[in-house]
Amino acid sequence: MDSNKYSARIESLRQLMRDNGWDAVILTGSDPHSSEYPAERWQQVKWLTGFTGEAGDVVVTMDHAGLWTDTRYFIQAVQQLEGSGAVLHKTRVTGQVLIPEWLDLHFKGKDDVRIAVDGLCQNVSAIDELEKNFTVVDVPDLLSCLWTERPEIPQTPIFAIDPGESRLQKIEWLRSFLEEKSCDCILLTSLDEIAWMLNVRASDIEYNPLVISYLLVSREDVKWFVQKGQIEDSETEAAFSELRSDGVYILPYNDISLYFNDIEGRLYIDESTLNYHLYSLLGCDTLAGTSPVVFRKSIKNPTEIKGMKEAHILDGTAMEKFLFWLEKSLDADKVITEWDAAVKLGQLRSELSGYQGDSFETISAYGKGAALPHYITPHDNAPVLRQEGLYLCDSGGQFTSGTTDITRTIPLGECSELEKEDYTLVLKGHIDLAMAIFPEGTAGCQIDALARNPLWKAKRNFGHGTGHGVGYFLGVHEGPQDIRQNFNRQSLTPGMITSDEPGIYREGLHGVRHENLLLCVDKGQSEFGHWYGFENLTLCHFDTSAILWELLDQDEIDWLNDYNRHVYNTLAPMLPPEVAEWLKAKTLLSNRK
Amino acid sequence: MDSNKYSARIESLRQLMRDNGWDAVILTGSDPHSSEYPAERWQQVKWLTGFTGEAGDVVVTMDHAGLWTDTRYFIQAVQQLEGSGAVLHKTRVTGQVLIPEWLDLHFKGKDDVRIAVDGLCQNVSAIDELEKNFTVVDVPDLLSCLWTERPEIPQTPIFAIDPGESRLQKIEWLRSFLEEKSCDCILLTSLDEIAWMLNVRASDIEYNPLVISYLLVSREDVKWFVQKGQIEDSETEAAFSELRSDGVYILPYNDISLYFNDIEGRLYIDESTLNYHLYSLLGCDTLAGTSPVVFRKSIKNPTEIKGMKEAHILDGTAMEKFLFWLEKSLDADKVITEWDAAVKLGQLRSELSGYQGDSFETISAYGKGAALPHYITPHDNAPVLRQEGLYLCDSGGQFTSGTTDITRTIPLGECSELEKEDYTLVLKGHIDLAMAIFPEGTAGCQIDALARNPLWKAKRNFGHGTGHGVGYFLGVHEGPQDIRQNFNRQSLTPGMITSDEPGIYREGLHGVRHENLLLCVDKGQSEFGHWYGFENLTLCHFDTSAILWELLDQDEIDWLNDYNRHVYNTLAPMLPPEVAEWLKAKTLLSNRK
Repeated sequence: MDSNKYSARIESLRQLMRDNGWDAVILTGSDPHSSEYPAERWQQVKWLTGFTGEAGDVVVTMDHAGLWTDTRYFIQAVQQLEGSGAVLHKTRVTGQVLIPEWLDLHFKGKDDVRIAVDGLCQNVSAIDELEKNFTVVDVPDLLSCLWTERPEIPQTPIFAIDPGESRLQKIEWLRSFLEEKSCDCILLTSLDEIAWMLNVRASDIEYNPLVISYLLVSREDVKWFVQKGQIEDSETEAAFSELRSDGVYILPYNDISLYFNDIEGRLYIDESTLNYHLYSLLGCDTLAGTSPVVFRKSIKNPTEIKGMKEAHILDGTAMEKFLFWLEKSLDADKVITEWDAAVKLGQLRSELSGYQGDSFETISAYGKGAALPHYITPHDNAPVLRQEGLYLCDSGGQFTSGTTDITRTIPLGECSELEKEDYTLVLKGHIDLAMAIFPEGTAGCQIDALARNPLWKAKRNFGHGTGHGVGYFLGVHEGPQDIRQNFNRQSLTPGMITSDEPGIYREGLHGVRHENLLLCVDKGQSEFGHWYGFENLTLCHFDTSAILWELLDQDEIDWLNDYNRHVYNTLAPMLPPEVAEWLKAKTLLSNRK
Repeated sequence: MDSNKYSARIESLRQLMRDNGWDAVILTGSDPHSSEYPAERWQQVKWLTGFTGEAGDVVVTMDHAGLWTDTRYFIQAVQQLEGSGAVLHKTRVTGQVLIPEWLDLHFKGKDDVRIAVDGLCQNVSAIDELEKNFTVVDVPDLLSCLWTERPEIPQTPIFAIDPGESRLQKIEWLRSFLEEKSCDCILLTSLDEIAWMLNVRASDIEYNPLVISYLLVSREDVKWFVQKGQIEDSETEAAFSELRSDGVYILPYNDISLYFNDIEGRLYIDESTLNYHLYSLLGCDTLAGTSPVVFRKSIKNPTEIKGMKEAHILDGTAMEKFLFWLEKSLDADKVITEWDAAVKLGQLRSELSGYQGDSFETISAYGKGAALPHYITPHDNAPVLRQEGLYLCDSGGQFTSGTTDITRTIPLGECSELEKEDYTLVLKGHIDLAMAIFPEGTAGCQIDALARNPLWKAKRNFGHGTGHGVGYFLGVHEGPQDIRQNFNRQSLTPGMITSDEPGIYREGLHGVRHENLLLCVDKGQSEFGHWYGFENLTLCHFDTSAILWELLDQDEIDWLNDYNRHVYNTLAPMLPPEVAEWLKAKTLLSNRK
């Protein structure tokens, strides 16, 4: 049985623990940069236990192995852990016992408990908590001696981009921030912040056009710790040459700590992304705070906004061709599975100019599969689409001009009344948020209810956020803003891009989600203050066949008709005639109230 | 000139400062119980400077006298301070310099600065801040030696009430809280908490049926520090006798600190209401936290809910008689001022069974007066109402059965398009919030936008909260819940009563506010969780003559018609025939969309 592989790995870890006198080992699903999607090298939890969920931490002691993960992954975790000897510890449930508390209980009364961690993959605050009661032993790359075929740190071709603001301008701005904070130097460790600062991209992380590296910017110089081996491609050489001519020193990735001694004065750090190993090697005076790049990067400049609009026009043509293909294939009685559909969509995107890959793994889910917000479409024996009910497709692309993220729920034929109600109420919420006008200073949590109110009135709801920030040819999830129930004080600001994606999920039946990306824009002044609102970036029609018109107000119907007309007018010239014709019929004015 | 009186008082305070070696004196507008409305005795800022605003603190040094107050009172403060020698310091503005910072700047470089405060009227945390840099001298009743005619502490007749839960039950509950917190005793200093705990009421504070007192509850006994002099009324004697038979010790108000030595074990205190003077006299171990009474009191029991509904039916009859009188008087060309209207309404309320007084000072404001949310109707030369435009009336009563708070904006005749738009949009927001259904755990700030969204869409807004908590025959403002933009995490819970009062204010033109009280109620379970909503308590029709029907959706029109019909059906049997007939016409079904 395959899972014995994992129990053997856990046993070999225990042998390592005995040899070194460690009472416990903690491993996380993160990398040295607190990345949302770590490269294979840092998928330590997966290697040790077989668990593939995006969130999960492992504790191994001599007599226990446990995986801590949240509600989204309970079923998956139980299945994947079978035979490994590791057991599930539930988080985000009432009565949860998190790792520090569990360790306290487990080692109660025992003195000098030594806990080993891979300090590269732990952030500073987590270790602070552990050090209260235990001796923490930091062992960088702890698993490497057991994981003989552990992948190297990725090093993919790097290229420079021109997003309307030069890296020299950005460095100048960063130095003015340092001056303001009476600091002399800043260490950036978050990969999207570094890519933004230096105007560089690569493919070191799946779905994310990032370069695994560290960046040290002082008032005097800029050091980029990026080389993981011999550089053999001309693209990277060209990029390096461009950066060097801007005064950036290109240095080996692993040498960063060697330069810590050179830091003069006070260093600005962001403990939410800085790993414990690097932190423990710092000998200088530090000031901890949120990296200024986080907010600055979220405000897209005119070039980035123009690029994002172009990317969405391209993306829209792929989406419309995909939906046309899907309908025609089903009409022709072809057998199309969820997997086939995802492949087709990926292929259509890959034909687009500037396509660099998908921005996340496509969720292609039919019927009850769509009731799982984090459904993973199976490669083998995927469900076959039929001409009834709802098909949900959540996907996006990385283009040199920008990043896209779109969800459409498509009625494939006859739908039940419940499906129609859910389809319509979610759309109503989506539209109400898209139409919102709000005063300067409004945070996402203060308008989240606009998207939920139509569902709430029918006692329906969804368990995820309504909107996440989106990067410019960067991560499809980025902060600091969001639109959700959590009390995030960051106000929505012109230039920010956020998704609008309410949903409804009914176990065993169906799922609905409608998602566009919205650009926050200035709506001008009135005697009551300054006003912001949204401009739609996403271009793909909403199918009107499953709408219960009596559930929509006139302004919502008008919005929908305007949107569909705008989609047709924008995309039609770029579509094959038969697709354009089909889209015309799909976007005919509807005003049946 | 009258204001010289204040400059003389400030000078006499400076003499006192010289005599005692004080470098500065701070006086606040609060009382020893952190009351929102202090009794005359504690209106020290008003006595010293002439400023009558509800929020204001004063600092006097040898060469400066300053009043710190917020945007609401800037104009008033400048007017009232004229001639006093005191100057305005603005708060809630960008670049504000608050008192501690101002003192730091003022006394920069000076050693051993001694600042005198009346510790009875300062809460603990404010003094903590001052003690960092200064020597704080606590002088209880600091002004008494100057203020020769200073009023005594009020002592009005006390009566016991039966709100469905006995004081013995409440004391038992409080003791279980002490056990849970490993405490032996709790000190309650907030007047509404004490009144709620002991089921007693009086009239020590204007508009608030409260008894000025302290309460000390230990696991063994209950000590109520309430007597301020000879008790001469039989009602109070009867109440005391009832309390004594429940084991409550009745003790002199000023003796409280004498009993601090008797406290055994650990005392639970709430630093947000405990004054610094009492706090500094405590010698025992303390645990600081929010008083458990705050939340418990906000959840009305069935008897209290029944009482509140009865009070609102009574109040509704007075409101409808008032509106009938107003219309008929104007039709008959009688000269009615804002003041006359307020007096008439107060008189109609005073005729109601169980009326104990108004719950706050009536705002009776016509036309541009209503554009000031905190307008004070002048006694002399009040504006005369005419048969055009909008008249706003915000008022409420204290009844033995409950507390009311209602605002109606009444079109007195022809209205401008802008008045009609504002009237309709505010009503739309009011209705949308009243209709809200929301999941268990939702805080007020998460649904505040429902009331604002119709205004926001027209780039209109209002600068106050949408809703405040309301007590049961207690304060018309009580926490812990509210509905506003501030991030208050307290979730709305069945049994809580909150106002719903959006508005629009246009300087020099008009003001609109529509206010009802809403009871949070359980709306049952669905597969998506547990649901709460609101039930309307307030009963007074909304005038439909100024409504622009095209701005309302059908569900809002339906709500309005249902509400007005319900008002008529409930109140008509209790109204004089001519008023009932008039109300019938006012509440005829409207569905003109």
